[in-house]
Amino acid sequence: MSQTIDSLNWRYATKRMTGKKINEVQLEQILDSIQLTATSNGLQPFSVLVVEDEQIKRKLAPAAFNQPQVVESSQVLVFAAWTEITEDRIDSYFEQVVKERNLDPSALSGYAERLKKHFGAMSKEEQFSWASKQAYIALGTAMVAAAEAKVDTTPMEGFDPAKVDEIFGLQAQKMGSTALLALGYRDENKDPMKDAKKVRRSKDKLFVKI
Amino acid sequence: MSQTIDSLNWRYATKRMTGKKINEVQLEQILDSIQLTATSNGLQPFSVLVVEDEQIKRKLAPAAFNQPQVVESSQVLVFAAWTEITEDRIDSYFEQVVKERNLDPSALSGYAERLKKHFGAMSKEEQFSWASKQAYIALGTAMVAAAEAKVDTTPMEGFDPAKVDEIFGLQAQKMGSTALLALGYRDENKDPMKDAKKVRRSKDKLFVKI
Repeated sequence: MSQTIDSLNWRYATKRMTGKKINEVQLEQILDSIQLTATSNGLQPFSVLVVEDEQIKRKLAPAAFNQPQVVESSQVLVFAAWTEITEDRIDSYFEQVVKERNLDPSALSGYAERLKKHFGAMSKEEQFSWASKQAYIALGTAMVAAAEAKVDTTPMEGFDPAKVDEIFGLQAQKMGSTALLALGYRDENKDPMKDAKKVRRSKDKLFVKI
Repeated sequence: MSQTIDSLNWRYATKRMTGKKINEVQLEQILDSIQLTATSNGLQPFSVLVVEDEQIKRKLAPAAFNQPQVVESSQVLVFAAWTEITEDRIDSYFEQVVKERNLDPSALSGYAERLKKHFGAMSKEEQFSWASKQAYIALGTAMVAAAEAKVDTTPMEGFDPAKVDEIFGLQAQKMGSTALLALGYRDENKDPMKDAKKVRRSKDKLFVKI
C-alpha cells in the first residue's frame, strides 16, 4: 500500500476548520516537505510566510474574501513567489551550492551565466509565472505531507494578490503572493463537504498511454 | 517518522537512468497520485501523456535537448495543460460532479457561470499559465509517489514546447506541454549527481513566521 495514495484519499479541500492548533512536529514536517521539494535548477524561487498571529489572520481574511478557514486555521501558509529572477538571486544560489558541495568557486560560473541569460530574456510576468509554478510543486508536496501528519489543508487561489502583498510588504521584497494554504483540523459539525464524494476525471480520460 | 520526508530525501533529479522498466503497480501508483491531486476548483485542467514507446521516446529526445533520461527512462510523463479553459470543459466537469454526487442538475449552475466569467476574462496566456500551475501541483505529488515506490524521477523544463506539442498533436487538442517527468532507475555507474549533497535554502531563510 502507498502512504501517498492514502494521504491523498484522506484529504479534501476543507471548508470549515475548528481553530485547534497543530503541533510543532506536524508543522515542521510540512515545512520540511516544502524545503525539500524539487524546483527547476534548484532555485527555490519563493518564500513561504507561516501566518499564525490571530490579528494578522483577521487582517488577511477580507483579502481572501472572508473564507472562514483563514481565521479558523492553525496557520495560513502564504506562498510568495519571486517577481524577478535577479542576477543577485542566481549568484546567491550558486554561492551556496559551491560552498555546500565544496566545489571550485568557478565550477558553476558557466551554468550561472546561462541561467542569467535565460531569465534575462523573460518578461517580468514570465519570471513571476515561472516562479509561481515552482511554488506550486511545493504546494503539492505540502498537501501530501500535511495529510500524512493528519493535518487538514485548504489550498486557496481565491484572494486578492495585491491586498495580500500589501499586508506583508511583499512587493518591496520582489515577491508576490501566488497561493495560500490553510492548515488545521476539519470541523466535522460545520463542514458540508466533509463527506462529499471525491470527483476526479477517470484515468482513461486523464492519461494517454503512448 | 514521515514517509513523505523520507521519499523527498531519497529522491534527486536523476541525470542518467538504466533503461530498466518500472512495474505496473509502481506506474499505476504514480498515475493514481496524479489523478488524486488537488487542483483549483477541481478542474484538473491537464492531461498526462505516458510515453513508453521507444521509437516515440527517441523522437522526443532532440526536442528535450537530448537529455539522456528521455531514452533511458522507463516512461516519460508529458504534462499537457489546457491552453484554453473553454465553457465546454467547465460544463463537462460540472456534469461529472452533479452525476457523481447525485445533485440536482441545476445545483451548481451558478458556480459554473461564475467560473466561465472568471476564465472568460483571462487572456489565453493567463489561462494556460493557470492550467500549468495546476499541473505543477500534480508534478509535486507524482515525485513523492514515485520516490515512495522507489522509482527515480527527473522533472524537466528543458525542452522545446512547440516541438513537443507537434510530436503529440497537442495544439489541436487545445493543450500545451508544460513539464516532463522521466520515470526509471538511477544508473549508479554513470550518474555524477547520485551522491551530490542536496542543497536547499535553510529553513530560517525560506520561511517567515508571523
